[in-house]
Amino acid sequence: MPNFHRAVVLLSGGLDSATTLAIARADGHACHCLSVDYGQRHRAELKAAVRVAEAHGACEHRVVSVDLGGMGGSALTDESIDVPVSGIEPGIPVTYVPARNTIMLSLALAFAEVREASHIYFGANAVDYSGYPDCRPEYMKAFEVLANLATKAAVEGRKLTLNTPILALTKGEIIRRGLALGVDYSMTVSCYQADAAGRACGVCDACRIRRAGFDAAGEPDPTHYVAR
Amino acid sequence: MPNFHRAVVLLSGGLDSATTLAIARADGHACHCLSVDYGQRHRAELKAAVRVAEAHGACEHRVVSVDLGGMGGSALTDESIDVPVSGIEPGIPVTYVPARNTIMLSLALAFAEVREASHIYFGANAVDYSGYPDCRPEYMKAFEVLANLATKAAVEGRKLTLNTPILALTKGEIIRRGLALGVDYSMTVSCYQADAAGRACGVCDACRIRRAGFDAAGEPDPTHYVAR
Repeated sequence: MPNFHRAVVLLSGGLDSATTLAIARADGHACHCLSVDYGQRHRAELKAAVRVAEAHGACEHRVVSVDLGGMGGSALTDESIDVPVSGIEPGIPVTYVPARNTIMLSLALAFAEVREASHIYFGANAVDYSGYPDCRPEYMKAFEVLANLATKAAVEGRKLTLNTPILALTKGEIIRRGLALGVDYSMTVSCYQADAAGRACGVCDACRIRRAGFDAAGEPDPTHYVAR
Repeated sequence: MPNFHRAVVLLSGGLDSATTLAIARADGHACHCLSVDYGQRHRAELKAAVRVAEAHGACEHRVVSVDLGGMGGSALTDESIDVPVSGIEPGIPVTYVPARNTIMLSLALAFAEVREASHIYFGANAVDYSGYPDCRPEYMKAFEVLANLATKAAVEGRKLTLNTPILALTKGEIIRRGLALGVDYSMTVSCYQADAAGRACGVCDACRIRRAGFDAAGEPDPTHYVAR
Protein backbone atom coordinates (compact mmCIF):
# COMPACT_ATOMS: atom_id res chain seq x y z
CA MET A 1 0.00 0.00 0.00
CA PRO A 2 1.25 3.47 -0.78
CA ASN A 3 1.97 5.81 2.08
CA PHE A 4 0.04 8.98 1.29
CA HIS A 5 1.59 10.80 4.21
CA ARG A 6 5.24 10.81 3.22
CA ALA A 7 6.63 13.70 1.22
CA VAL A 8 10.12 14.52 0.03
CA VAL A 9 10.79 18.24 0.43
CA LEU A 10 13.68 19.86 -1.43
CA LEU A 11 15.25 22.19 1.12
CA SER A 12 17.92 24.70 0.16
CA GLY A 13 18.00 26.68 3.39
CA GLY A 14 16.52 29.70 1.66
CA LEU A 15 13.27 31.53 2.22
CA ASP A 16 11.24 29.78 -0.50
CA SER A 17 12.02 26.19 0.48
CA ALA A 18 11.52 26.91 4.21
CA THR A 19 8.04 28.18 3.37
CA THR A 20 7.44 25.11 1.21
CA LEU A 21 8.41 22.80 4.09
CA ALA A 22 5.94 24.63 6.35
CA ILE A 23 3.20 24.18 3.73
CA ALA A 24 3.99 20.45 3.33
CA ARG A 25 3.76 20.05 7.11
CA ALA A 26 0.47 21.98 7.16
CA ASP A 27 -0.79 19.63 4.41
CA GLY A 28 -0.28 16.78 6.89
CA HIS A 29 2.83 15.12 5.47
CA ALA A 30 5.74 13.48 7.23
CA CYS A 31 8.54 15.44 5.60
CA HIS A 32 11.75 13.82 4.41
CA CYS A 33 13.95 16.77 3.52
CA LEU A 34 16.66 16.61 0.89
CA SER A 35 19.35 19.21 0.29
CA VAL A 36 21.58 19.10 -2.75
CA ASP A 37 25.17 20.22 -2.40
CA TYR A 38 26.02 20.95 -6.03
CA GLY A 39 29.26 22.79 -5.32
CA GLN A 40 27.51 26.13 -4.91
CA ARG A 41 29.30 29.12 -3.51
CA HIS A 42 26.55 29.85 -1.02
CA ARG A 43 27.30 26.87 1.24
CA ALA A 44 25.95 28.83 4.21
CA GLU A 45 22.55 27.88 2.73
CA LEU A 46 23.25 24.21 3.49
CA LYS A 47 23.99 25.00 7.15
CA ALA A 48 20.76 26.98 7.23
CA ALA A 49 18.92 23.97 5.76
CA VAL A 50 19.95 21.82 8.74
CA ARG A 51 18.56 24.45 11.16
CA VAL A 52 15.37 24.95 9.14
CA ALA A 53 14.63 21.21 8.95
CA GLU A 54 15.10 20.79 12.71
CA ALA A 55 13.06 23.84 13.61
CA HIS A 56 10.15 23.15 11.27
CA GLY A 57 9.28 19.54 12.07
CA ALA A 58 11.03 17.50 9.38
CA CYS A 59 11.32 13.82 10.29
CA GLU A 60 14.59 13.46 8.39
CA HIS A 61 17.15 15.58 6.56
CA ARG A 62 19.67 14.21 4.07
CA VAL A 63 22.28 15.96 1.98
CA VAL A 64 23.39 14.50 -1.35
CA SER A 65 26.40 15.85 -3.18
CA VAL A 66 26.69 16.39 -6.90
CA ASP A 67 29.97 17.64 -8.29
CA LEU A 68 28.91 20.08 -11.02
CA GLY A 69 31.91 22.37 -10.54
CA GLY A 70 33.98 20.58 -13.19
CA MET A 71 31.41 21.42 -15.86
CA GLY A 72 31.60 25.17 -15.29
CA GLY A 73 29.17 27.53 -16.94
CA SER A 74 27.56 29.27 -13.92
CA ALA A 75 28.58 32.03 -11.54
CA LEU A 76 27.23 29.92 -8.68
CA THR A 77 29.65 27.02 -9.28
CA ASP A 78 32.43 28.54 -11.39
CA GLU A 79 34.88 30.71 -9.42
CA SER A 80 36.00 32.47 -12.61
CA ILE A 81 32.59 34.13 -13.10
CA ASP A 82 31.65 36.99 -10.76
CA VAL A 83 28.27 37.10 -9.00
CA PRO A 84 26.51 40.22 -10.32
CA VAL A 85 25.88 42.84 -7.62
CA SER A 86 24.74 45.86 -9.61
CA GLY A 87 21.04 45.04 -9.89
CA ILE A 88 18.63 42.67 -11.60
CA GLU A 89 18.96 42.50 -15.39
CA PRO A 90 16.37 41.12 -17.86
CA GLY A 91 16.93 37.66 -19.38
CA ILE A 92 18.66 34.57 -18.00
CA PRO A 93 21.27 35.61 -15.40
CA VAL A 94 24.80 34.17 -15.16
CA THR A 95 23.82 32.75 -11.77
CA TYR A 96 21.70 30.21 -13.66
CA VAL A 97 23.06 26.69 -12.99
CA PRO A 98 22.67 24.39 -16.03
CA ALA A 99 19.80 21.94 -15.57
CA ARG A 100 19.82 22.58 -11.82
CA ASN A 101 16.15 21.98 -11.19
CA THR A 102 16.16 18.83 -13.33
CA ILE A 103 19.10 17.48 -11.32
CA MET A 104 17.53 18.40 -7.97
CA LEU A 105 14.15 16.93 -8.93
CA SER A 106 15.78 13.72 -10.19
CA LEU A 107 17.51 13.32 -6.82
CA ALA A 108 14.22 14.03 -5.04
CA LEU A 109 12.62 11.38 -7.23
CA ALA A 110 15.26 8.83 -6.19
CA PHE A 111 14.71 9.71 -2.52
CA ALA A 112 10.93 9.50 -2.94
CA GLU A 113 11.34 6.05 -4.42
CA VAL A 114 13.57 4.83 -1.58
CA ARG A 115 11.24 6.28 1.10
CA GLU A 116 8.05 5.29 -0.76
CA ALA A 117 6.88 8.88 -0.65
CA SER A 118 3.86 9.86 -2.72
CA HIS A 119 4.67 13.57 -2.96
CA ILE A 120 7.60 15.80 -3.81
CA TYR A 121 7.40 19.41 -2.59
CA PHE A 122 9.52 21.88 -4.50
CA GLY A 123 9.76 25.59 -3.69
CA ALA A 124 10.31 26.84 -7.23
CA ASN A 125 8.92 30.23 -8.06
CA ALA A 126 7.94 31.51 -11.47
CA VAL A 127 7.45 35.13 -10.44
CA ASP A 128 10.87 36.26 -9.21
CA TYR A 129 12.74 33.81 -11.45
CA SER A 130 10.88 34.36 -14.69
CA GLY A 131 14.20 34.21 -16.57
CA TYR A 132 14.82 30.58 -15.54
CA PRO A 133 13.32 28.08 -18.01
CA ASP A 134 13.11 25.33 -15.39
CA CYS A 135 10.88 27.41 -13.09
CA ARG A 136 7.94 27.49 -15.54
CA PRO A 137 4.67 25.66 -14.82
CA GLU A 138 4.90 23.65 -18.07
CA TYR A 139 8.32 22.41 -17.01
CA MET A 140 6.92 21.23 -13.66
CA LYS A 141 4.09 19.40 -15.41
CA ALA A 142 6.56 17.67 -17.74
CA PHE A 143 8.66 16.53 -14.79
CA GLU A 144 5.61 15.04 -13.08
CA VAL A 145 4.79 13.11 -16.27
CA LEU A 146 8.37 11.84 -16.43
CA ALA A 147 8.36 10.88 -12.74
CA ASN A 148 5.27 8.77 -13.23
CA LEU A 149 7.00 6.81 -16.00
CA ALA A 150 10.39 6.56 -14.29
CA THR A 151 10.01 4.52 -11.15
CA LYS A 152 9.22 1.09 -9.79
CA ALA A 153 6.33 2.72 -7.91
CA ALA A 154 4.97 4.08 -11.20
CA VAL A 155 5.14 0.64 -12.79
CA GLU A 156 3.17 -0.68 -9.83
CA GLY A 157 0.50 2.00 -10.26
CA ARG A 158 1.38 4.34 -7.39
CA LYS A 159 1.14 7.93 -8.48
CA LEU A 160 3.73 10.52 -7.50
CA THR A 161 2.59 14.13 -7.22
CA LEU A 162 4.89 17.11 -7.67
CA ASN A 163 3.66 19.97 -5.47
CA THR A 164 4.94 23.48 -6.21
CA PRO A 165 2.81 25.47 -3.76
CA ILE A 166 4.62 28.81 -4.13
CA LEU A 167 5.15 28.70 -7.90
CA ALA A 168 2.71 31.52 -8.64
CA LEU A 169 3.16 33.59 -5.47
CA THR A 170 5.02 36.88 -5.21
CA LYS A 171 7.82 37.08 -2.66
CA GLY A 172 5.59 39.19 -0.42
CA GLU A 173 2.83 36.57 -0.58
CA ILE A 174 5.32 33.78 0.17
CA ILE A 175 6.56 35.63 3.25
CA ARG A 176 3.04 36.33 4.54
CA ARG A 177 2.09 32.67 4.00
CA GLY A 178 5.20 31.46 5.81
CA LEU A 179 4.78 33.83 8.75
CA ALA A 180 1.19 32.63 9.16
CA LEU A 181 2.60 29.07 9.39
CA GLY A 182 5.25 30.06 11.92
CA VAL A 183 8.34 30.10 9.71
CA ASP A 184 11.33 31.74 11.35
CA TYR A 185 12.98 33.53 8.43
CA SER A 186 15.91 34.70 10.53
CA MET A 187 17.37 31.19 10.15
CA THR A 188 17.09 31.13 6.36
CA VAL A 189 19.85 32.26 3.99
CA SER A 190 19.08 33.45 0.45
CA CYS A 191 22.27 35.34 -0.47
CA TYR A 192 24.32 34.02 -3.41
CA GLN A 193 27.53 34.90 -1.58
CA ALA A 194 26.73 34.72 2.15
CA ASP A 195 29.74 34.57 4.44
CA ALA A 196 30.61 31.55 6.58
CA ALA A 197 28.36 32.84 9.37
CA GLY A 198 25.44 32.99 6.93
CA ARG A 199 25.40 36.81 6.73
CA ALA A 200 23.99 38.21 3.50
CA CYS A 201 25.78 40.64 1.15
CA GLY A 202 22.65 42.72 0.58
CA VAL A 203 23.54 43.55 -3.03
CA CYS A 204 23.23 40.34 -5.12
CA ASP A 205 20.00 39.56 -6.99
CA ALA A 206 18.83 37.10 -4.32
CA CYS A 207 19.32 39.69 -1.55
CA ARG A 208 17.53 42.38 -3.55
CA ILE A 209 14.54 40.12 -4.28
CA ARG A 210 14.35 39.01 -0.65
CA ARG A 211 14.51 42.51 0.80
CA ALA A 212 11.85 43.75 -1.62
CA GLY A 213 9.68 40.82 -0.50
CA PHE A 214 9.74 41.84 3.14
CA ASP A 215 8.97 45.42 2.07
CA ALA A 216 6.01 44.20 -0.04
CA ALA A 217 4.75 42.02 2.83
CA GLY A 218 4.98 44.97 5.18
CA GLU A 219 7.07 42.89 7.57
CA PRO A 220 10.42 43.61 9.21
CA ASP A 221 13.40 41.99 7.42
CA PRO A 222 15.08 39.59 9.90
CA THR A 223 18.04 38.94 7.55
CA HIS A 224 21.53 39.12 9.04
CA TYR A 225 23.60 41.38 6.77
CA VAL A 226 27.36 41.88 6.74
CA ALA A 227 28.37 45.33 7.99
CA ARG A 228 29.20 47.77 5.16
CA MET B 1 24.13 29.48 -33.73
CA PRO B 2 23.67 25.96 -32.47
CA ASN B 3 26.41 23.44 -33.07
CA PHE B 4 24.69 20.47 -34.68
CA HIS B 5 27.84 18.39 -34.48
CA ARG B 6 28.29 18.20 -30.74
CA ALA B 7 26.81 15.34 -28.79
CA VAL B 8 27.00 14.40 -25.13
CA VAL B 9 27.43 10.62 -24.79
CA LEU B 10 26.72 8.92 -21.46
CA LEU B 11 29.55 6.44 -21.05
CA SER B 12 29.55 3.83 -18.31
CA GLY B 13 32.45 1.73 -19.52
CA GLY B 14 30.13 -1.14 -20.32
CA LEU B 15 29.34 -2.82 -23.60
CA ASP B 16 26.16 -0.89 -24.40
CA SER B 17 27.53 2.62 -23.93
CA ALA B 18 30.76 1.80 -25.82
CA THR B 19 28.61 0.73 -28.76
CA THR B 20 26.55 3.90 -28.40
CA LEU B 21 29.69 6.05 -28.53
CA ALA B 22 30.76 4.27 -31.72
CA ILE B 23 27.32 4.95 -33.23
CA ALA B 24 27.45 8.63 -32.25
CA ARG B 25 30.87 8.93 -33.88
CA ALA B 26 29.58 7.15 -37.00
CA ASP B 27 26.68 9.65 -37.04
CA GLY B 28 29.30 12.38 -37.40
CA HIS B 29 29.26 13.94 -33.94
CA ALA B 30 32.06 15.38 -31.87
CA CYS B 31 31.51 13.34 -28.73
CA HIS B 32 31.70 14.85 -25.24
CA CYS B 33 31.56 11.83 -22.98
CA LEU B 34 30.16 11.93 -19.47
CA SER B 35 30.48 9.22 -16.86
CA VAL B 36 28.52 9.33 -13.64
CA ASP B 37 30.13 8.03 -10.48
CA TYR B 38 27.03 7.37 -8.37
CA GLY B 39 28.82 5.35 -5.70
CA GLN B 40 28.37 2.08 -7.56
CA ARG B 41 30.22 -1.03 -6.52
CA HIS B 42 31.46 -1.71 -10.03
CA ARG B 43 33.96 1.15 -10.12
CA ALA B 44 36.09 -0.83 -12.55
CA GLU B 45 33.50 0.33 -15.10
CA LEU B 46 34.65 3.93 -14.63
CA LYS B 47 38.27 3.00 -15.35
CA ALA B 48 37.03 1.17 -18.42
CA ALA B 49 35.13 4.32 -19.47
CA VAL B 50 38.38 6.30 -19.57
CA ARG B 51 39.96 3.68 -21.85
CA VAL B 52 36.88 3.40 -24.06
CA ALA B 53 36.61 7.18 -24.55
CA GLU B 54 40.28 7.44 -25.53
CA ALA B 55 40.20 4.45 -27.86
CA HIS B 56 36.98 5.38 -29.65
CA GLY B 57 37.58 8.98 -30.64
CA ALA B 58 35.84 11.04 -27.92
CA CYS B 59 36.99 14.66 -27.88
CA GLU B 60 36.46 14.93 -24.12
CA HIS B 61 35.64 12.75 -21.13
CA ARG B 62 34.34 14.09 -17.81
CA VAL B 63 33.31 12.28 -14.67
CA VAL B 64 30.72 13.79 -12.34
CA SER B 65 30.09 12.36 -8.89
CA VAL B 66 26.73 11.93 -7.23
CA ASP B 67 26.63 10.57 -3.71
CA LEU B 68 23.60 8.26 -3.74
CA GLY B 69 25.05 5.81 -1.23
CA GLY B 70 23.47 7.56 1.75
CA MET B 71 19.98 6.98 0.34
CA GLY B 72 20.38 3.18 0.20
CA GLY B 73 17.79 1.04 -1.51
CA SER B 74 19.88 -0.74 -4.20
CA ALA B 75 22.33 -3.63 -4.25
CA LEU B 76 24.57 -1.55 -6.50
CA THR B 77 25.08 1.23 -3.94
CA ASP B 78 24.09 -0.33 -0.62
CA GLU B 79 26.72 -2.67 0.81
CA SER B 80 24.11 -4.38 3.01
CA ILE B 81 22.29 -5.85 -0.02
CA ASP B 82 23.96 -8.75 -1.87
CA VAL B 83 24.31 -8.75 -5.66
CA PRO B 84 22.26 -11.74 -6.89
CA VAL B 85 24.39 -14.43 -8.57
CA SER B 86 21.96 -17.33 -8.97
CA GLY B 87 20.35 -16.33 -12.26
CA ILE B 88 18.00 -13.77 -13.78
CA GLU B 89 14.62 -13.47 -12.03
CA PRO B 90 11.45 -11.88 -13.44
CA GLY B 91 10.43 -8.40 -12.26
CA ILE B 92 12.51 -5.46 -11.07
CA PRO B 93 15.86 -6.71 -9.68
CA VAL B 94 17.47 -5.45 -6.45
CA THR B 95 20.32 -4.10 -8.60
CA TYR B 96 17.90 -1.38 -9.74
CA VAL B 97 19.22 2.05 -8.65
CA PRO B 98 16.38 4.47 -7.75
CA ALA B 99 15.86 7.02 -10.51
CA ARG B 100 19.31 6.26 -11.93
CA ASN B 101 18.54 7.01 -15.55
CA THR B 102 16.71 10.22 -14.61
CA ILE B 103 19.74 11.36 -12.62
CA MET B 104 22.21 10.42 -15.36
CA LEU B 105 20.12 12.08 -18.07
CA SER B 106 19.73 15.24 -15.98
CA LEU B 107 23.52 15.46 -15.65
CA ALA B 108 23.88 14.84 -19.38
CA LEU B 109 21.38 17.65 -19.94
CA ALA B 110 23.49 20.01 -17.82
CA PHE B 111 26.61 19.04 -19.74
CA ALA B 112 24.80 19.45 -23.07
CA GLU B 113 23.76 22.92 -22.01
CA VAL B 114 27.30 23.92 -21.00
CA ARG B 115 28.83 22.51 -24.22
CA GLU B 116 25.94 23.73 -26.42
CA ALA B 117 25.42 20.19 -27.68
CA SER B 118 22.32 19.45 -29.73
CA HIS B 119 22.21 15.70 -29.01
CA ILE B 120 22.43 13.35 -26.05
CA TYR B 121 23.30 9.73 -26.82
CA PHE B 122 22.22 7.22 -24.20
CA GLY B 123 22.85 3.47 -24.42
CA ALA B 124 19.73 2.33 -22.61
CA ASN B 125 18.27 -0.97 -23.71
CA ALA B 126 14.67 -2.07 -23.36
CA VAL B 127 15.26 -5.70 -24.33
CA ASP B 128 17.62 -7.05 -21.67
CA TYR B 129 16.37 -4.61 -19.03
CA SER B 130 12.66 -4.97 -19.53
CA GLY B 131 12.18 -4.91 -15.74
CA TYR B 132 13.57 -1.36 -15.44
CA PRO B 133 10.85 1.30 -15.80
CA ASP B 134 13.34 3.96 -16.89
CA CYS B 135 14.50 1.92 -19.89
CA ARG B 136 11.14 2.07 -21.68
CA PRO B 137 10.66 4.02 -24.92
CA GLU B 138 7.82 6.11 -23.40
CA TYR B 139 10.17 7.16 -20.59
CA MET B 140 12.80 8.30 -23.11
CA LYS B 141 10.19 10.31 -25.00
CA ALA B 142 9.06 12.01 -21.77
CA PHE B 143 12.64 12.95 -20.92
CA GLU B 144 13.15 14.53 -24.33
CA VAL B 145 9.98 16.59 -23.81
CA LEU B 146 11.26 17.71 -20.40
CA ALA B 147 14.71 18.53 -21.79
CA ASN B 148 13.19 20.82 -24.38
CA LEU B 149 11.40 22.78 -21.66
CA ALA B 150 14.27 22.81 -19.16
CA THR B 151 17.12 24.75 -20.65
CA LYS B 152 18.26 28.16 -21.77
CA ALA B 153 18.83 26.62 -25.21
CA ALA B 154 15.20 25.44 -25.29
CA VAL B 155 13.97 28.93 -24.40
CA GLU B 156 16.05 30.23 -27.29
CA GLY B 157 14.51 27.71 -29.70
CA ARG B 158 17.37 25.24 -30.07
CA LYS B 159 16.07 21.69 -29.96
CA LEU B 160 17.83 18.95 -28.04
CA THR B 161 17.46 15.39 -29.33
CA LEU B 162 17.76 12.31 -27.13
CA ASN B 163 19.20 9.45 -29.19
CA THR B 164 18.83 5.91 -27.85
CA PRO B 165 20.18 3.94 -30.82
CA ILE B 166 20.36 0.53 -29.11
CA LEU B 167 17.07 0.74 -27.20
CA ALA B 168 15.31 -1.94 -29.25
CA LEU B 169 18.32 -4.14 -30.12
CA THR B 170 19.09 -7.52 -28.60
CA LYS B 171 22.51 -7.94 -26.98
CA GLY B 172 23.61 -10.02 -29.96
CA GLU B 173 22.57 -7.26 -32.35
CA ILE B 174 24.34 -4.62 -30.27
CA ILE B 175 27.57 -6.64 -30.34
CA ARG B 176 27.40 -7.20 -34.09
CA ARG B 177 26.74 -3.48 -34.66
CA GLY B 178 29.64 -2.50 -32.42
CA LEU B 179 32.08 -4.95 -34.00
CA ALA B 180 31.17 -3.58 -37.44
CA LEU B 181 32.08 -0.11 -36.12
CA GLY B 182 35.37 -1.31 -34.65
CA VAL B 183 34.49 -1.41 -30.95
CA ASP B 184 37.06 -3.26 -28.87
CA TYR B 185 34.87 -5.02 -26.29
CA SER B 186 37.87 -6.41 -24.42
CA MET B 187 38.24 -2.97 -22.79
CA THR B 188 34.63 -2.75 -21.62
CA VAL B 189 33.42 -3.94 -18.21
CA SER B 190 29.79 -4.96 -17.63
CA CYS B 191 30.05 -6.97 -14.39
CA TYR B 192 28.17 -5.66 -11.31
CA GLN B 193 31.04 -6.76 -9.08
CA ALA B 194 34.18 -6.67 -11.22
CA ASP B 195 37.45 -6.75 -9.30
CA ALA B 196 39.90 -3.84 -9.21
CA ALA B 197 41.58 -5.11 -12.38
CA GLY B 198 38.21 -5.04 -14.17
CA ARG B 199 37.82 -8.84 -14.27
CA ALA B 200 34.23 -10.06 -14.38
CA CYS B 201 32.61 -12.48 -11.92
CA GLY B 202 30.82 -14.42 -14.66
CA VAL B 203 27.75 -15.15 -12.50
CA CYS B 204 25.88 -11.86 -11.89
CA ASP B 205 22.96 -10.87 -14.15
CA ALA B 206 25.11 -8.44 -16.16
CA CYS B 207 27.74 -11.14 -16.85
CA ARG B 208 25.07 -13.68 -17.84
CA ILE B 209 23.39 -11.25 -20.25
CA ARG B 210 26.73 -10.24 -21.77
CA ARG B 211 27.96 -13.79 -22.29
CA ALA B 212 24.65 -14.83 -23.86
CA GLY B 213 25.01 -11.83 -26.19
CA PHE B 214 28.36 -12.99 -27.55
CA ASP B 215 26.89 -16.48 -27.98
CA ALA B 216 23.89 -15.05 -29.87
CA ALA B 217 26.18 -12.90 -32.04
CA GLY B 218 28.30 -15.96 -32.84
CA GLU B 219 31.40 -14.07 -31.74
CA PRO B 220 34.14 -15.02 -29.29
CA ASP B 221 33.68 -13.47 -25.81
CA PRO B 222 36.72 -11.24 -25.10
CA THR B 223 35.71 -10.64 -21.45
CA HIS B 224 38.39 -11.05 -18.79
CA TYR B 225 36.94 -13.30 -16.09
CA VAL B 226 38.32 -14.01 -12.62
CA ALA B 227 39.68 -17.55 -12.27
CA ARG B 228 37.25 -19.91 -10.50
